[in-house]
This record gives sequence, structure tokens and C-alpha cells, in this order.
Amino acid sequence: MSGTSDADTPDTTAPTPAVPPMIAVDAMGGDHAPEEIVRGAVLAVRELGLRVVLVGRRSQIAELLAREDALKEVPVVHSEDSLAMHEGALASWRRPRSSAAVACRLIRRGDADALVSAGSTGGIVATSTVRLRTQPGVLRPALAVPLPTGETPTILVDAGANADAKPEMLVQFAHLGCAYAQTAFGVEQPRVGLLTIGSEPGKGNKLTRRAAELLTAASDDDSRSLDFLGNVEGHDLMSRVVDVVVADGHTGNVALKTVEGTAAFTMAALREAFTSSWSAKAGALLQRRALGELRARLDSETYGGAALLGLNGTVVIAHGASRARGVARACQLAHDLATGRVGERIRRRVQHRPPSWLHRLAQTEER
Amino acid sequence: MSGTSDADTPDTTAPTPAVPPMIAVDAMGGDHAPEEIVRGAVLAVRELGLRVVLVGRRSQIAELLAREDALKEVPVVHSEDSLAMHEGALASWRRPRSSAAVACRLIRRGDADALVSAGSTGGIVATSTVRLRTQPGVLRPALAVPLPTGETPTILVDAGANADAKPEMLVQFAHLGCAYAQTAFGVEQPRVGLLTIGSEPGKGNKLTRRAAELLTAASDDDSRSLDFLGNVEGHDLMSRVVDVVVADGHTGNVALKTVEGTAAFTMAALREAFTSSWSAKAGALLQRRALGELRARLDSETYGGAALLGLNGTVVIAHGASRARGVARACQLAHDLATGRVGERIRRRVQHRPPSWLHRLAQTEER
Repeated sequence: MSGTSDADTPDTTAPTPAVPPMIAVDAMGGDHAPEEIVRGAVLAVRELGLRVVLVGRRSQIAELLAREDALKEVPVVHSEDSLAMHEGALASWRRPRSSAAVACRLIRRGDADALVSAGSTGGIVATSTVRLRTQPGVLRPALAVPLPTGETPTILVDAGANADAKPEMLVQFAHLGCAYAQTAFGVEQPRVGLLTIGSEPGKGNKLTRRAAELLTAASDDDSRSLDFLGNVEGHDLMSRVVDVVVADGHTGNVALKTVEGTAAFTMAALREAFTSSWSAKAGALLQRRALGELRARLDSETYGGAALLGLNGTVVIAHGASRARGVARACQLAHDLATGRVGERIRRRVQHRPPSWLHRLAQTEER
Repeated sequence: MSGTSDADTPDTTAPTPAVPPMIAVDAMGGDHAPEEIVRGAVLAVRELGLRVVLVGRRSQIAELLAREDALKEVPVVHSEDSLAMHEGALASWRRPRSSAAVACRLIRRGDADALVSAGSTGGIVATSTVRLRTQPGVLRPALAVPLPTGETPTILVDAGANADAKPEMLVQFAHLGCAYAQTAFGVEQPRVGLLTIGSEPGKGNKLTRRAAELLTAASDDDSRSLDFLGNVEGHDLMSRVVDVVVADGHTGNVALKTVEGTAAFTMAALREAFTSSWSAKAGALLQRRALGELRARLDSETYGGAALLGLNGTVVIAHGASRARGVARACQLAHDLATGRVGERIRRRVQHRPPSWLHRLAQTEER
């Protein structure tokens, strides 16, 4: 846990948790909520030894906990409302009593340190951004998703929180991604690449060309802890040339879903190929174990989910289709991020940066 | 070849080729140029029965043709210069005598109908755009790439010709992609999707939200032949829900390279899994044929390459790493496009649209 090279000032404002962080789990969000979510929370407590509080409709949760004989192990905080899976950003504003909103309130009050939800990404991003607010100096929160490229994953950030980004936001996303790679995966000096079209400097669209300039400047300044390697292309997402891939939320989200879709397509094509002949079928039987391991490795639940970084509180958004094990993994990720104080790292990385309006002014004058 | 529903006006300006189209092959472009390109041209003539002219350094090409005993089968047009693989848009302007530029001159003079090159995409896009010019009414040419999703591929357009696009360009890209799907793959009424973040209407970034409005309007007007199904996401690229996926060149290029990179990654992970144990290895032996077929299906050379649509002349850009067979396939695609008169289809689809400055004016006033 060495990490940030720019941060040796003692920190008096941040809390020093003597006890492990408390994870507030949104019991009502997800395709298999609340059953699988409650089971996941119980797993997180029993198998992973985490501290968890479930937020949602009390009677329903209590019944499910009783089934697992875990009524005394997992506390419950009641919320009468919940966000539906199809509800986006707007609806979440109108639902101050949703389980996600109540979980955010627990964090603001200091009763919890992190939120885990398998609810709709749009809804959770909006709810937590409104209710937890961005950390000082952070322009926008960003979604960080680990891609299973090797022993340590490649972090893609922003994977979809901001459809329209400004160049200076992309520089902050790089800092958020680095803080995440350091905290969750122990990468000491993460290498950063900018996702665009064409790997040579000067390639890309307007947004990424300007962002590349800013990232280069941030990288050259040695008070800063950014190791910017330059542009990367779509095929580099899975090639492990960098630890953190920075993108605007539109490009990042399309890229993420393309990775998921193509991996699924290739595996399906494979399955088809393996039933195409007698010998291929026989071969598949011999490989059952190897294939199972590969599938697990490519599984989007492997790392527990996407982290929404840059807010006053840790937020992990698990895959909507998460089962109990996926939810438990998301709790583990939230625990690791809160324990490693990812927020503190982000604050230190971002506070040295010039205020955003200065950036924006410079930007405007150029045009 | 029924196709465009809006086009029954007889066309007097377009040439009616009694003879098959002549394909000008850029012998000097590609990682394996000129050897594999020349061999590919010979294949195209001998096996596919196409008409081909090779453009490049005469002495070098003649020697290679002699080796194949094909000196009398493939004519050669000399060009002293060529674009290097790393050269982008700017360099191509400075090289009016490059093989690609000379091939474009053949098309302008009417001595050839199509250009096939495995040279650098940036260089070929720039050279052919400058030298062939866009068809009347077409704002920008766009790269169309077939993705091997099923029996007929899904067409991704624009796969990287325009890093920064305007909403009205995306509407034209839809028309270009439809004309291509109709001509090359016989899809009568192609279904169109817009690549963005979030499948519901109103989702996406500024560019795609506006483009979705314009596409919906174009689709509702029944004089037009656009079947717009709405937004699609990254995973829909390989799921075959639409025939044509429209994107700005930045998003499209990142998505295309992500598909290629993820497919390659999955296959490599598979290879690794199959050598992980004795039984897995034995299984792989039994499956050799099935795996080979799958690899061929996912191979980026399957469809011959990307078509640059919207210019006065057919342009096909083969993969830089193309071998002879890939070059021959690119010639076949160029032949099919020229024979099916994709340019005529595009002209008919685009000519009914309001002039672009009107669109842009409406656009500016709104802001």
C-alpha cells in the first residue's frame, strides 16, 4: 500500500477507521433482488468477514434472512421505496426514500462507509451523485471497471457515467483510475493510456487530442503522479499495455459493452463449433474443466462490479444480473476501496490541480 | 437486386458498364507489399475471373508477375512513388505520384472503376477523398466494415474515416451503410441502429441524441428508405439485431478495434486453456478442424476489407496485414460494389435530402 508519490502530508480531516468499514447493501436493486442480494450479504458476512447492513423493505428482508438463519448477523435499515431496474437518472431524483437514497443517507451520517447496489447504473449514478456529492475539486464522478486482461486487470474509466466529457475531466478520470488501481490492486505506479483512434500523438477527435495534451503536461510535471504513455486503441483494452485506460463515458461504455458482447459471441461460436462433429464433441468433454475456468475468468462478475469514483463515499455498482456470489464480491471490492482509502488518494491527487474554471477558461480562449 | 424503394427514376448520367469493372490494385500498399499484393491480383484474375490492373513500380511488379508466369494476364500502370504504412493524411497530399494517387487518376479518367489498397487507412482515406471527391450531396465519405455476425454480416459505418462527426453526417452514414448492405449482401430493407450508450430513446451523448432525432424523422418520412430501429449498444454489434450500425468515426473505430482485440484475446485465452492439462490437450487435437473453421470465420480478412463509401469511385481498403487471399477477396468486394452500382444507390438516397447547410443552420439556431 505505498502508492501515491505526491502524498506525504499527514491528513487530519479524514477519519481513521479503527473498525472495518460498514457496507450498506441496497437489497432492492438488481434483476434477482431481493433474494440473491440478501444471500450475497450473508455470504459477505459469513465467508468474507465483512461488516454489512442491508437497506430495503424490512419485512421482506427479514423473511429472507430468517431463511438463511442470519437474522442476528446482518442488520437491516428500512426503506419503503426502491428504484426500478429500468428507471434512469430522473426518476431517482423523485425518490428520496428509495433504498439507494437511504443507503446514501447512512453514508452521509457516518453510519456506513460504502454503498453496494446491483440496481440500474443510471439510477445509482444519479442518486449517489446527488446525495453524496463529488469530492472537493472533482468535476464529475466516473465509473471504473476492471477488465480481466491478466493477473491484475486493466481499469477502464469512465465506463459510462458521463456521456459528454470535457478534456480536463479526462485528466481527472486518469487520476481516479490510478487511485483505484493503487488501492484495489496494489499497482504502485499505474501506466495510463488514452482510448482513441490512432496510436500516434496528434491522432483522435477534438476531445481526445486536447486531453492528450493536458495528460502529457500533467505527466511531465514531476510533482504529479501520472505516468501517461499516450494514445491506445480499441485492441489495447485487452492487450495489457497499460494499467488504466481513460475514455469519455460514451466511448468507454461502448467499448466495455463491445468487450462483453464479443467475448460472449466468441464463446457461443465456440460452443457451436464444438457440437459440429463427433470428434469435436468428444474433445469438448475432455476440456470441460479448462473451458469452465476460462468462462469464469471472462465472467463480468469476477471483480465484483464497477466503482463510481470521486464521490464522498465509496460506491460499487454490481452487474444487474448479479447472483449472491457476485454481490459478495462487490462487497469485498467496496471493503477494499474503503479500507485503502481510495477517496483520500483521490483528494490528494486532485487538490494540487488548478481549479477547473481556469482550465475551462484556457479552453474557451483557444477556440 | 431490387433494393432502394425510392429509386425508380431512370438514370442517364451513370455509366452502364457492359464490360465488368476494372479494379486498380495499389501494389505498393500493405505490410506484405508488393509480393502478396501481386500474388493476390493474380489470384483475383485466375480464380475469380476479375479484371485487374496493378499500380506501382513497374520493374518490381513485372518481376513478381514473371515469377507467377502472369505477365500477360495482369496489366501494370507505373507509379514511381508510394505511401509508407505509417504515413497518415497529410503525407498523402504531398505525394501526387504515389501508387494510390495514380490509381485514383485512372478512376477519374474512366480507365478504372475501383481502387483496392492494403495501405494505411489514414493515407488511403485522405488520398482518395482529395482525388476522387465526394459524390454530390455527400458531406463526408465513411468507412463501412462488415462484422462476421452471421450468414450476412452486420455493417459498421463509420469505422474511422471521420474522427469528429455532425448529427446530419450520421444520417448520411446510415444511407451509405444501407446502400452497401443492399449492394454487397443483398439485404433488401436493412434495419439500422445507432451505436450509443443506453438503448432507450433519449439516451446517449449530445451527438447521438440529435442524430437519433434526425434518423427517426428520416425513418418516419415514407419517401425515404430508412428503417431506423433506434439506439443499440456495444454488445449489439455482434448480436445481429440490426443490419447496419451507425456511429461517428471515433466511436466506430474504437468499437471495431475492440471487437478484433477481444476476439483475439478470447481465442488466445482458449489456446492457453487447451494446453493447461493432458485431457484438454487431447481434446484440442480432436477439435482441430472445428477450431480452424471458427478462426477463419472470425478472421478480419473474411470479407475483404473496409469500403470507403460516398466518393466518385469504389474504394476498398484491405487489412494492412493482408496476404494474397485477402487481397483477392478485397478485389471481389470492389467488383461486387462496382457492379451493383453502390454509388448510384447512394446518389439516389442522398439527393432527396435537404442541402447540408440548411441542416447545419437549423442545428446552429437551436443552440
